Amino acid sequence: MKTQAYAALSATAPMVPHTIERRELRDDDVAIEILYSGVCHSDLHMVRNDWGRAIYPVVPGHEIIGRVVAAGPSAHRFKAGDAVAVGTFVDSCERCDQCHKGEEHMCREVLTETYNGLDRVTGQPTLGGYSRHIVVKEAFVLRVPEGLDLSRAAPLLCAGITTYSPLRTWNVGPGSRVAVVGLGGLGHMAVKLAIGLGAHVTVISRSRAKQADALALGAEALLPTDDAQALAAAASSFDLIVDTVPTKHDINPYIPLLDIDGTLVVVGQLGDLQEPFTVPMIMGRRRVAGSMIGGIRETQEMLDFCARQQILPDCEMIRMDQINEAFDRLERADVRYRFVIDMSTLA
Amino acid sequence: MKTQAYAALSATAPMVPHTIERRELRDDDVAIEILYSGVCHSDLHMVRNDWGRAIYPVVPGHEIIGRVVAAGPSAHRFKAGDAVAVGTFVDSCERCDQCHKGEEHMCREVLTETYNGLDRVTGQPTLGGYSRHIVVKEAFVLRVPEGLDLSRAAPLLCAGITTYSPLRTWNVGPGSRVAVVGLGGLGHMAVKLAIGLGAHVTVISRSRAKQADALALGAEALLPTDDAQALAAAASSFDLIVDTVPTKHDINPYIPLLDIDGTLVVVGQLGDLQEPFTVPMIMGRRRVAGSMIGGIRETQEMLDFCARQQILPDCEMIRMDQINEAFDRLERADVRYRFVIDMSTLA
Repeated sequence: MKTQAYAALSATAPMVPHTIERRELRDDDVAIEILYSGVCHSDLHMVRNDWGRAIYPVVPGHEIIGRVVAAGPSAHRFKAGDAVAVGTFVDSCERCDQCHKGEEHMCREVLTETYNGLDRVTGQPTLGGYSRHIVVKEAFVLRVPEGLDLSRAAPLLCAGITTYSPLRTWNVGPGSRVAVVGLGGLGHMAVKLAIGLGAHVTVISRSRAKQADALALGAEALLPTDDAQALAAAASSFDLIVDTVPTKHDINPYIPLLDIDGTLVVVGQLGDLQEPFTVPMIMGRRRVAGSMIGGIRETQEMLDFCARQQILPDCEMIRMDQINEAFDRLERADVRYRFVIDMSTLA
Repeated sequence: MKTQAYAALSATAPMVPHTIERRELRDDDVAIEILYSGVCHSDLHMVRNDWGRAIYPVVPGHEIIGRVVAAGPSAHRFKAGDAVAVGTFVDSCERCDQCHKGEEHMCREVLTETYNGLDRVTGQPTLGGYSRHIVVKEAFVLRVPEGLDLSRAAPLLCAGITTYSPLRTWNVGPGSRVAVVGLGGLGHMAVKLAIGLGAHVTVISRSRAKQADALALGAEALLPTDDAQALAAAASSFDLIVDTVPTKHDINPYIPLLDIDGTLVVVGQLGDLQEPFTVPMIMGRRRVAGSMIGGIRETQEMLDFCARQQILPDCEMIRMDQINEAFDRLERADVRYRFVIDMSTLA
């Protein structure tokens, strides 16, 4: 079927209305009418071809909330009208050890990304959530639980799971001491989710100006990185630091803040970090790790957890035709904390 | 009591014979006649004041094998004639959470190092194993199990435990896939200990010339870092990489060799590493960690394990008066793989 979308036709072009073709339903597919699409910074990176692998036209969007409108004959998990979600990937090999473990995001073969991936059957580029409809294999579709506000849930599919997964991997629970570096789309979710899991949360920021925001999100304190005395006093005081900074930066001020056996997990920066100094790592068996999104099972767990705990991103709703302005503001980090597109405005 | 030793009197002086005073036995002390002392690269660093904190005269030596000659009235664990060992530290606070866990090496207070530490009672600098006798609180003395060759056991106290501890922390056991970077004093012990624990071991080296040595130690393969094809073929194939390289280096070629959730543990370099590239860490939840020696309980476990498995360092025995030459050769990495001083030659 044909459906309306917004696309970038080249790395330098603005986003424009664009009609796309969605595939006919395969046996295990569901067709989804998209209600809301979150705007992730990686959408902007792909549109601008920052990673050198964009396939134009690019239809971004991998934080998708919608309702099922049709299901293939062997797609039994969903029926028309069900509230569903699609995240950053829509297919995987489904055969490897990682897929069998429910960790499809680390599939041994190439993961099929929601946009700018290649469909495993046709080899055609995938097109994302900045569109009215999408067709997805049902195994990669999440159920939106009752009670989760559809208009705010979209960012959970990337910002949410990206921060929830490391909190779970490193066993954050009641009493855990968690710090979050950076207070943007990912960071504000890390704060909310860690609090939801029972942790004591501190925000680490270059800017004292974020103190009120940090406390408003439920953090117990803001630790400013320009305050050497406060940093020294906070030595060995965190079990986990979630580092959401999306640019090359220096993690050396943070590592000594970890307690013995603590981990700093990088979820924001895809690229280089400044030279790490090993002494605090060696002396306290401290660790630096990376983490990326999460598998389908864990993403569903996160959605269910957020519904139970009423944890939702702070969103600014925009119309589809405001996307270019939103991208500009995203580049300036001028959003608290995530744009969500009301897809009904595309009609 | 007075006893003979070898000391550096300044950062630029050679090691020379030097008479030192050992303290009178405290209630919980044992006096040890030293039979063998291992030569660790950190001895050389301290003698040359590379870390800026040497207190002269420096009597190095923290890989000590000897026999008990006297015990204080409340020192009941040992009696005269017992074969014992002393490692890199001789005291800790004994009150903090880490000491209570038997992880005294990560004591929350300052660990009292075997040399160049400060005695917790007198505040006087501690003097190490390049001497005929030493007096140590019995809680920090290890028992050398029956069957362990005293003349080769000394390097277990630093090189051994430094590599054994991370193997145990990261659960290396039968079938584990372990790589060891660097084949010196630490590296060759990492190979032997990992094999003893049942792992498949690969040596990673810049030099193909080390292939025969690696295989002779029991490694299954040598992976040369200048062979891009071999590195690519080895992607995601190790659970743990023990990185023993003692200088600033680039870990980026090694991280993709880790399987998902694998860890590269730095045990050699105290200082900076080159800039790490986060993508393989993020994509595979891979980790970089540090580790330093081990606690008393784990050190005893390691000695017992080595006795059972007949795992011993490859040593070159020297006389005490050859120490300056040995230091020179150590700087050129010209030893396979550890010098041990026969302390009877000091008489």
